[in-house]
Amino acid sequence: MEFSLIDRIRERTAQGRDDVRLGIGDDAAVVSVPAGQELAVAIDTMVEGVHFPPGTRAADIGWKSLAVNLSDLAAMGATPAWALLAMTLPKGDADFIDDFATGFAQLAQSYRLALVGGDTTRGALTISVAVHGFVPPGKALMRDGAKPGDAIFVTGTLGDAAAGLQLLGKHGDDDARSLFLIERLNRPTPRVAAGLALRSHATACIDVSDGLLADLGHICVASGVGAEIDVSLLPRSSSLLDLFDDTTSWDFALSGGDDYELCFTVPTQHIAAVQADFARLGCGATKIGRIVEGEGVSVRHADGKPLELTHRGWDHFTS
Amino acid sequence: MEFSLIDRIRERTAQGRDDVRLGIGDDAAVVSVPAGQELAVAIDTMVEGVHFPPGTRAADIGWKSLAVNLSDLAAMGATPAWALLAMTLPKGDADFIDDFATGFAQLAQSYRLALVGGDTTRGALTISVAVHGFVPPGKALMRDGAKPGDAIFVTGTLGDAAAGLQLLGKHGDDDARSLFLIERLNRPTPRVAAGLALRSHATACIDVSDGLLADLGHICVASGVGAEIDVSLLPRSSSLLDLFDDTTSWDFALSGGDDYELCFTVPTQHIAAVQADFARLGCGATKIGRIVEGEGVSVRHADGKPLELTHRGWDHFTS
Repeated sequence: MEFSLIDRIRERTAQGRDDVRLGIGDDAAVVSVPAGQELAVAIDTMVEGVHFPPGTRAADIGWKSLAVNLSDLAAMGATPAWALLAMTLPKGDADFIDDFATGFAQLAQSYRLALVGGDTTRGALTISVAVHGFVPPGKALMRDGAKPGDAIFVTGTLGDAAAGLQLLGKHGDDDARSLFLIERLNRPTPRVAAGLALRSHATACIDVSDGLLADLGHICVASGVGAEIDVSLLPRSSSLLDLFDDTTSWDFALSGGDDYELCFTVPTQHIAAVQADFARLGCGATKIGRIVEGEGVSVRHADGKPLELTHRGWDHFTS
Repeated sequence: MEFSLIDRIRERTAQGRDDVRLGIGDDAAVVSVPAGQELAVAIDTMVEGVHFPPGTRAADIGWKSLAVNLSDLAAMGATPAWALLAMTLPKGDADFIDDFATGFAQLAQSYRLALVGGDTTRGALTISVAVHGFVPPGKALMRDGAKPGDAIFVTGTLGDAAAGLQLLGKHGDDDARSLFLIERLNRPTPRVAAGLALRSHATACIDVSDGLLADLGHICVASGVGAEIDVSLLPRSSSLLDLFDDTTSWDFALSGGDDYELCFTVPTQHIAAVQADFARLGCGATKIGRIVEGEGVSVRHADGKPLELTHRGWDHFTS
């Protein structure tokens, strides 16, 4: 069972990395960090019923379990290299395992990421992935460098995943716009190239996993600053705007989790360079506000009036 | 919740490691592998009801979840450095979390191991730990180097954990011998110093997690050899011998899992050096047989007659 899942992923992912001295099959793998690089390491867990609804396709679970971790590396400006996978699942369903492996491997291949270890056990459906990436000494993107006056940016669009979660299983979820939003929920794109580009520009960076307000709030706390967001600047997809009214889509964009875009801060003199870089990157980056003295995140309309907020970000573990 | 558990462990474990450039609190940690070292990485999961019975003390679960992973590093001859912890638990029970943190930290402190990342989520009680250790290039202990004629050794004593599992909750489990065996089940000692000493001597090494026959079998398959064990040489603790008859204790020693001793092979010209090293190490190492041409593990009495076996090692995931 263990060898079945882990081997299925291994045989579909990078085999020929020189830095993997000893791959899967012994008590531990042995890997080598390139000279002059440090190692960014993170671990994230997804639990059925908490991070994805029962009935989510196995291939999507496989993709997303790696994506949320690569998003953490992206937010550090690190280049993905290796992963470990620990999975518990209720029974050895061959189709489920095969599909999970396919989704995981599809994303891994994009980065020549090698799976170097794994463990599978019987239990409730739970997936923990640990990822490792390279970053030059002193170049990691942290949360604590935002300064008053810095511009606040986000990559891509916000609120799509929360909208997709609302649409799951609803009448009309085969509409192209619904499918786009559900795909954004199930197959988030880690912004790895954006993170690498930001190493030269950003003073702080985080990925939007719990919602913009919550995650930008982490930057504010770590940096000892406040933030002002102009709600009219929040990048929203046309699918989101088509299917939801302004109030709902703002709520999703501000408080919905699972977008896995990057939120980052940039000194004003770097804004032009960031915009030039992102013109090449495909995902785009939108200026949504600025860092201020003080604390907390405030959200205003274009006319300066404060927005009434209904949520303050997701928390997967509220007790 | 997440910060509570992870922070409780962090504040009780190594803070001052120079190689941790950025610890817990950002999207990822940043660590630095010393020049001239490679990195051994492994991940292992423990699930309530599979790897430990419901009712196991939280401090023991914390200890053991790290111990089984350090045992993998020991089996590679690696020096422990950092760990990541992913945990799902049914509810935020403060006492449970505090006790778990205490047990985990107690063992971590022995190795100045730093916890550099974690994730906690609501779910069935499941703990995945990823560990990282250093090993000089080319010096990792693998499974595939055993040669016919090599002596087979194990550290410590075998079968104690399986005996402890039998005794759990039984009448008389407050007897000192029972307590010893149950402690061996709940608080295994990873043989890290032994693994380091073996880098100069062993041709193959594995930790005994699934039972001697199963794990020595892995060495035989990887090395393309067979093994002969003399059952009269199997090291058994006095507690095991006091409380169980020969047949049962042999069965435990051969097929019981969870001992986390090292099984390793040594060329005959290194035997004296191994015995001298282990005289210093405390845990002891016992010669139990030899590697032969062929395949599979055979077990014989001192008079050469084959032993009838009732089990062939544990498998946590049998479907």
